[in-house]
Amino acid sequence: MILPEIRRKSLREKLQKKQLVTAMEAHSGLSASIVEHTKTKDNPEGYGAIWMSSLTESSSKGYPDSEYLNINSRYDTLVEILNNSTKPIIYDADTGSFEEHFILTVKKLEMLGVSAVVIEDKKGLKQNSLLGSSPKQQAEDINVFSSKIKAGKAAQKSSDFMIVARIESLILGAGQEDATKRANAYIAAGADAILIHSKSETIDEVEKFILDYRKINSEIPIVIVPSTYDEMTNDKAKQIGANIVIYANQLLRASFTAMSKMATDILEQGSSHKLTDKVATCKDIIKLRN
Amino acid sequence: MILPEIRRKSLREKLQKKQLVTAMEAHSGLSASIVEHTKTKDNPEGYGAIWMSSLTESSSKGYPDSEYLNINSRYDTLVEILNNSTKPIIYDADTGSFEEHFILTVKKLEMLGVSAVVIEDKKGLKQNSLLGSSPKQQAEDINVFSSKIKAGKAAQKSSDFMIVARIESLILGAGQEDATKRANAYIAAGADAILIHSKSETIDEVEKFILDYRKINSEIPIVIVPSTYDEMTNDKAKQIGANIVIYANQLLRASFTAMSKMATDILEQGSSHKLTDKVATCKDIIKLRN
Amino acid sequence: MILPEIRRKSLREKLQKKQLVTAMEAHSGLSASIVEHTKTKDNPEGYGAIWMSSLTESSSKGYPDSEYLNINSRYDTLVEILNNSTKPIIYDADTGSFEEHFILTVKKLEMLGVSAVVIEDKKGLKQNSLLGSSPKQQAEDINVFSSKIKAGKAAQKSSDFMIVARIESLILGAGQEDATKRANAYIAAGADAILIHSKSETIDEVEKFILDYRKINSEIPIVIVPSTYDEMTNDKAKQIGANIVIYANQLLRASFTAMSKMATDILEQGSSHKLTDKVATCKDIIKLRN
Amino acid sequence: MILPEIRRKSLREKLQKKQLVTAMEAHSGLSASIVEHTKTKDNPEGYGAIWMSSLTESSSKGYPDSEYLNINSRYDTLVEILNNSTKPIIYDADTGSFEEHFILTVKKLEMLGVSAVVIEDKKGLKQNSLLGSSPKQQAEDINVFSSKIKAGKAAQKSSDFMIVARIESLILGAGQEDATKRANAYIAAGADAILIHSKSETIDEVEKFILDYRKINSEIPIVIVPSTYDEMTNDKAKQIGANIVIYANQLLRASFTAMSKMATDILEQGSSHKLTDKVATCKDIIKLRN
Repeated sequence: MILPEIRRKSLREKLQKKQLVTAMEAHSGLSASIVEHTKTKDNPEGYGAIWMSSLTESSSKGYPDSEYLNINSRYDTLVEILNNSTKPIIYDADTGSFEEHFILTVKKLEMLGVSAVVIEDKKGLKQNSLLGSSPKQQAEDINVFSSKIKAGKAAQKSSDFMIVARIESLILGAGQEDATKRANAYIAAGADAILIHSKSETIDEVEKFILDYRKINSEIPIVIVPSTYDEMTNDKAKQIGANIVIYANQLLRASFTAMSKMATDILEQGSSHKLTDKVATCKDIIKLRN
Repeated sequence: MILPEIRRKSLREKLQKKQLVTAMEAHSGLSASIVEHTKTKDNPEGYGAIWMSSLTESSSKGYPDSEYLNINSRYDTLVEILNNSTKPIIYDADTGSFEEHFILTVKKLEMLGVSAVVIEDKKGLKQNSLLGSSPKQQAEDINVFSSKIKAGKAAQKSSDFMIVARIESLILGAGQEDATKRANAYIAAGADAILIHSKSETIDEVEKFILDYRKINSEIPIVIVPSTYDEMTNDKAKQIGANIVIYANQLLRASFTAMSKMATDILEQGSSHKLTDKVATCKDIIKLRN
Repeated sequence: MILPEIRRKSLREKLQKKQLVTAMEAHSGLSASIVEHTKTKDNPEGYGAIWMSSLTESSSKGYPDSEYLNINSRYDTLVEILNNSTKPIIYDADTGSFEEHFILTVKKLEMLGVSAVVIEDKKGLKQNSLLGSSPKQQAEDINVFSSKIKAGKAAQKSSDFMIVARIESLILGAGQEDATKRANAYIAAGADAILIHSKSETIDEVEKFILDYRKINSEIPIVIVPSTYDEMTNDKAKQIGANIVIYANQLLRASFTAMSKMATDILEQGSSHKLTDKVATCKDIIKLRN
Repeated sequence: MILPEIRRKSLREKLQKKQLVTAMEAHSGLSASIVEHTKTKDNPEGYGAIWMSSLTESSSKGYPDSEYLNINSRYDTLVEILNNSTKPIIYDADTGSFEEHFILTVKKLEMLGVSAVVIEDKKGLKQNSLLGSSPKQQAEDINVFSSKIKAGKAAQKSSDFMIVARIESLILGAGQEDATKRANAYIAAGADAILIHSKSETIDEVEKFILDYRKINSEIPIVIVPSTYDEMTNDKAKQIGANIVIYANQLLRASFTAMSKMATDILEQGSSHKLTDKVATCKDIIKLRN
């Protein structure tokens, strides 16, 4: 744990140094602890930030990813993550809900030392964007969304906290032009960064958006989430002008597969004999924290 | 989810049918969902119960396993588990804390439809029994512990709810005789079952205890937790007279190892390319629940 | 505390006996405890139910009454109320949010032994109906609201749990006819009772609605909330055909005034000398629970 | 709400200015809001701090005051209080529990911007000190308690956060000498202030302690809680050398009495007619926050 005033500003500091920030998802104290301690020879500092995903958190808790859990019910998990890491936190707030609710969310996050909140420009019942655009999922009106950003910026007390506008134009099939128009509007409304989202299997549409947008605006931090277009590397991301790369759900998915296999194996074998030989002991897990 | 009045009595019903009940740990809605849905050809009913471990829950949340989290802070997780399963729940309440606190815990668990609570006969700051007996970890006085059991039994409103007395004699080096004396006392105080704990690497001391104790009492359900002595099979457990076998921490351990590897691999490679080919997709995870 | 299966059905049982049920609001364990224990010579059974108001709970917690707190963040308070009372609970769920969220809410409430949930037929950011209809507050489409009721009824597992449709037609100026049309539709969709809301200062519009509606439907339980039209007595309510009278916010208001006065008096006087002579001691408060 | 780094240090700043700090209890967002806004002509700044009492919070939630609720279950209430006030918070942590738990508590409180935590030198099941010393309530060993203070001080990250040692010697009948000895030990261990507790009906024993102790130590902030000895005024407190006066439970007591009366009156009268004429409206309550 570190003091909120130290942690809060640490994302801006990294961006100002023109570092590419890689953010790994966490959905629990334990996964945050893993992100905290993962280091390699070539990368002794490890990940640059933690992404507090609403998808992985709601899935980990066994809830639908439909914005059912808001900041109040995600509080305990956020505190777990704060307790188990020193890295900046980027918080996924879905649509941000009503403007009046978003204001309260911004105040709470900033108080706790979170560095950034991401809200997406959709309306109606939230559905995970990877599932495609169901009939219920529509783009939010640009003015309504811009007003929400403005209200959030007005509510924060420090200059450290960042509001990131996530643009769903490419997901909803509205095209590059719509994405650019929205980026301009959201930045004008005060957004500190934009996240261009895509469920393409190739890097092309994201690459095109960023290369084009950098001609308009060379400074605004741009965030990407290469879940489906996983050929995107950190180096490539940096080269085309992205500033933050979010690995949004990989830990949960690995965890799910490993737990399912273990549960099946023990049931089949009728004992755990030798099945845990290659997994961590409880001591290993406890030691990580210390 | 099922109604609490249906779930609560389902553990007793299984025990009355003389089935061996296998319980797998869960520490989140997702892990409960996995336990719920794990089935094999030979075992189409899957696990018989869910073990809500304080070790795996506190580790998953990134807290020490020192009884820092009590029923109030474990409530949300319990509700997640209830939401994602229909199986009976066995709740690990560490020492149960003070008698006055244990009464409140029993009332809450029973209300929610939990079938059983396990409390262990230690005192002082809780330390995980796998770590060995630190200087601070001592056996609780038999009378104090018996009184706690009695108070718990007096507090419950239904005849369905069970209190399981966990005996730490073998862990603390107090021997078989001490374990037997304590089993007798706790059953006399009203315990509905006993759990004989061991950190031996072989099945011998647990086997000896059960075989001997079955000469004294053929009816009381006996619970075992073969974490270290993993050569114990379900068949063997049934044969020597055990009634419930708890797989206490295997899912969390598998999860931890898989998450650590994924975090390291992505950091090393600088992308998630191909790294998720063999793990579940988000859709797979979401589908499980439906 | 009583078992959820006993508590859950107790509201239906009272209604079947043709008793008028008076419900007093509670927003905390302490206020629930007061409702539980308030009895008079003429009314030795006291209040018939507890109203878990979203207005008083959010106000007590210092949040706006804008549906910011959902069932997840109101859970702890609900459990406090369950712990401190044996009476049936009627839960105020505002609009119920999206249909998908309402289903989850119904399941949780039923599991905990709550007897009834009330949802109101408005949409958009919730605003307390006493504040008048702001531009943002609109009537929900009848079909959308009916579908929500149907989905809720399909989600419950027992036959005990009740869904109450709160009709805002009179509040929103849509008139008696609209209210009647909606009552018919909601009952057809499965509503177990209707709540006709009014912010009139006289009993006339509520009286007219009930008298007229009783000609159409003599059986459906009707709920009223005489906050502004406080000339309504329990006797009068029964006589015109109401079944449940909710005292929706009086305890919180009394509490607020008393706390404000005490805070001011101590500040003015520079001590608490004699200021607590006429208020309860801590012992009195603690004793109530025992 | 204010930033935690601003709030956290504000108690020390007031003490450094040699102001007497008066702290009023809060147990909810609403009561905190009342404390925040209470001002008089002679005292336009109002109260100097908020006391987050474990007695009033647990009573408000309908739990026994037996240290059943720890920081994790009191989190939501603390956040409510932070949301509704800008004043420094003094947190009542009962005994602080085990040293290992206290460390976690200190970290969380400091992170949230709380200014001070108070722990008392008792052991065993906590019982409210106003109820007298039951057989179970004993003084904690001086070395154990000093070690807890030391561990807490080592855990905090800023120099702003304060640990206040509450001395129960006078409550437990151990006398002035024991109190003095303990004050010396706790200050040596790092305590930033001491709280001398008393349940005497007169100011004599507290006055004597402070006057005597000021001869030994003129600097250490001294806290008093004039609940039973309510003839103590702020002026008198300052004159004898106290630095913080805590009004520990008056708001809850006023609230309880007012709610009980209202519940009884409505039940007796069979309506709320005219009963709310002298209490705040919901609008008044909502307005306070804005």
